Amino acid sequence: MSENILGTDQVCQVGLVVRDIGKALDAYCTLLGIPCPPVVITDAYEKAQTMYRGQPSLAQAKLAFIDLGQVQIELIEPIGAPSTWKDGLDEKGYSVHRIAFKVKDTPQVVEKLTQQGMPPIQQGQYTGGMYTYIDSAKKLGVILELLENF
Amino acid sequence: MSENILGTDQVCQVGLVVRDIGKALDAYCTLLGIPCPPVVITDAYEKAQTMYRGQPSLAQAKLAFIDLGQVQIELIEPIGAPSTWKDGLDEKGYSVHRIAFKVKDTPQVVEKLTQQGMPPIQQGQYTGGMYTYIDSAKKLGVILELLENF
Repeated sequence: MSENILGTDQVCQVGLVVRDIGKALDAYCTLLGIPCPPVVITDAYEKAQTMYRGQPSLAQAKLAFIDLGQVQIELIEPIGAPSTWKDGLDEKGYSVHRIAFKVKDTPQVVEKLTQQGMPPIQQGQYTGGMYTYIDSAKKLGVILELLENF
Repeated sequence: MSENILGTDQVCQVGLVVRDIGKALDAYCTLLGIPCPPVVITDAYEKAQTMYRGQPSLAQAKLAFIDLGQVQIELIEPIGAPSTWKDGLDEKGYSVHRIAFKVKDTPQVVEKLTQQGMPPIQQGQYTGGMYTYIDSAKKLGVILELLENF
């Protein structure tokens, strides 16, 4: 058996891109019989340091998180500049954009994935951690997200 | 707090439709450092009793299952007659087609979902259980799958 490049096999999030986060959130919360969680906006560039296709990006998004046991559903409505969020919405509409795994050493995982033909496509920071989206849709049918909490 | 229509909040599967299951399976197994699980073919109509958009369907698919803790990744390559699998592939290419939940009383859950504007779109049987796909992509961005094991 060879190495698990991600260092984990636990999917922790399924992220969907949406055109109208309020409407989507309402549909999920009605389905699950739960109160709607708050919608938050990602940090501005100064804090998020978002990189998209190798360039700094002002992209932001509205986010909402729905806890479903091990897996969290994340709804993302892109706002502002180009991003993988907006690309996903333009290409496939309201749909699953990525699945996320918690990793321990982002640079090392990114290097191994890049060697496998799956380079990073977007990266950013949030309070307490960072995320990296991997250009894996051709090989895996979905974007991989690496989440690393510090 | 209102009722959870599904009776569960545990995502048990993420299903992707693929054009080439061998290639996709290889990419996932390389990523995770695991031996490739077998590819199986869904039962023929006599056993599966597949219904698609209210009509009996000869649709079949090649399937492979990758266990990732609570969540199983299911890869589906449609073969044969029209199906939601083929629709998904035609519309969005290799992509996440649905998320699945285990339910206890399919007819009751289907009735409640239908009342919410999310009727069933495809249903079939397998050894030990049945699956129902729900036409939820407009509201939830993804097809819901109800799995009931008897």
